[in-house]
Amino acid sequence: MQLFKIHTGLIKPNQDIINVIIHSLDTSQINIEDNDILAITSKIVALSQGRIVKLEEVKPSDLALKLSKRYNLDPGYVELIIREADEIYGGTDQAICTLKEGVMIANAGVDRKNVPLGYAVLSPANPYESAQNIRQRIHDIKGKFVGIVIVDSRVTPLRLGTVGVAFGFSGFSPVRDCRGFKDLYGKPLQITRHCQVDDLAGAAHLVMGEVDERVPAILLRDTPIIISHDLNSQINKDSVMVSPNHCLFINALKYENENKVVKRE
Amino acid sequence: MQLFKIHTGLIKPNQDIINVIIHSLDTSQINIEDNDILAITSKIVALSQGRIVKLEEVKPSDLALKLSKRYNLDPGYVELIIREADEIYGGTDQAICTLKEGVMIANAGVDRKNVPLGYAVLSPANPYESAQNIRQRIHDIKGKFVGIVIVDSRVTPLRLGTVGVAFGFSGFSPVRDCRGFKDLYGKPLQITRHCQVDDLAGAAHLVMGEVDERVPAILLRDTPIIISHDLNSQINKDSVMVSPNHCLFINALKYENENKVVKRE
Repeated sequence: MQLFKIHTGLIKPNQDIINVIIHSLDTSQINIEDNDILAITSKIVALSQGRIVKLEEVKPSDLALKLSKRYNLDPGYVELIIREADEIYGGTDQAICTLKEGVMIANAGVDRKNVPLGYAVLSPANPYESAQNIRQRIHDIKGKFVGIVIVDSRVTPLRLGTVGVAFGFSGFSPVRDCRGFKDLYGKPLQITRHCQVDDLAGAAHLVMGEVDERVPAILLRDTPIIISHDLNSQINKDSVMVSPNHCLFINALKYENENKVVKRE
Repeated sequence: MQLFKIHTGLIKPNQDIINVIIHSLDTSQINIEDNDILAITSKIVALSQGRIVKLEEVKPSDLALKLSKRYNLDPGYVELIIREADEIYGGTDQAICTLKEGVMIANAGVDRKNVPLGYAVLSPANPYESAQNIRQRIHDIKGKFVGIVIVDSRVTPLRLGTVGVAFGFSGFSPVRDCRGFKDLYGKPLQITRHCQVDDLAGAAHLVMGEVDERVPAILLRDTPIIISHDLNSQINKDSVMVSPNHCLFINALKYENENKVVKRE
């Protein structure tokens, strides 16, 4: 598998990012091929949609005022988080744990990084539809069937720092269901499913970086993922989610006090 | 960044996996270079340590019997999980959520996949020390400074399927601390840290696969990670963990009933 960096200039609100990405690829003499996967940061997808907000123009609700004190965050910023989140759990210093588009993510993906001072960028609207539209446009321009994944950052339980996560995708199945496949000893697998799309997002996120690298997109080649040639396939977040009743973490932690066995510190 | 698959035959208990990996690289005419990173599955590291157990020889404790009923798992298997786990949280059908070597992982990493029927393979003993020893041996044999990451599988909150996670590593800092770095608009970053090692594990895990691929190792080249030339650096799990008090998920979910705001289903 190979990952090619797609360097760009500063992306501005409402800019056509597909033109920017294709221009960068052409300049670097990287030809898009069938079965490549294009990974794009959620930030530039959101910027291309004009999803940027001036914080002082946001009026915080009572809930925003309450949560802003509890989690040490600006009230206007918290108001955006509340408006954007699909669900809000608890939080910790400077971070509120939310559900957004099938991802448990800090602050509903609302971010003040790499946007002008006093502004916040929201997460992309309709990320699955956006990914599908990008896939269609790449096919229209280049005639190739590629996969698209919109990449955001998340933290994971008890680990320090962010990793990549798929915040929307198009053109492939996110999860390889290995149940029933034979292992090395011919035994059928019972429960194994491989969340290929989040591994893919992690690979792209590693190379994109988290600061001012100006690499908001990555082309991945020779991945093990099979790309569909049907441009009309409808994929949504349900293809990559488990219900809270089947989530190991939700189940494990919500009864923490009842079940926890601490063996050593 | 490039990822090269390292194909091997079936790895047997107590086999010298470094010899196997180097033989495969030589046969494929892939030369190890300074700053490459070698990703190895936790399973073959554990097998090389002889960490395989016949399940019928394991006598389940009362706690194992209780948890085996609750989570629909074989009592001997649960006994191994209890012995292996650093902490045990709750669980769900066929999976117990545990802490093991700094990773929140299902079933303490004890696995019945890709081992003979009736056996289970444990996770590697002393994975950080093991990674350091592998790094030293690669340097002894090939004269190159490489990074090592031992890769295991984990699930993440509300997502379907497994992704890669670093279960031990050597030769580099796992987390890039971006706090104080300037963003695209010159603003200093407040909280951003990038868990590069888990993104790296995800990239390797994507290519290794989850079934009978016989690709238990991956060589990664041109990663953004800086490899140390000090062979004696001591790294452990504390370099990649946050305390439960600072973990977004632990904090968010343990007060779930108190704080949760459900906006829409």
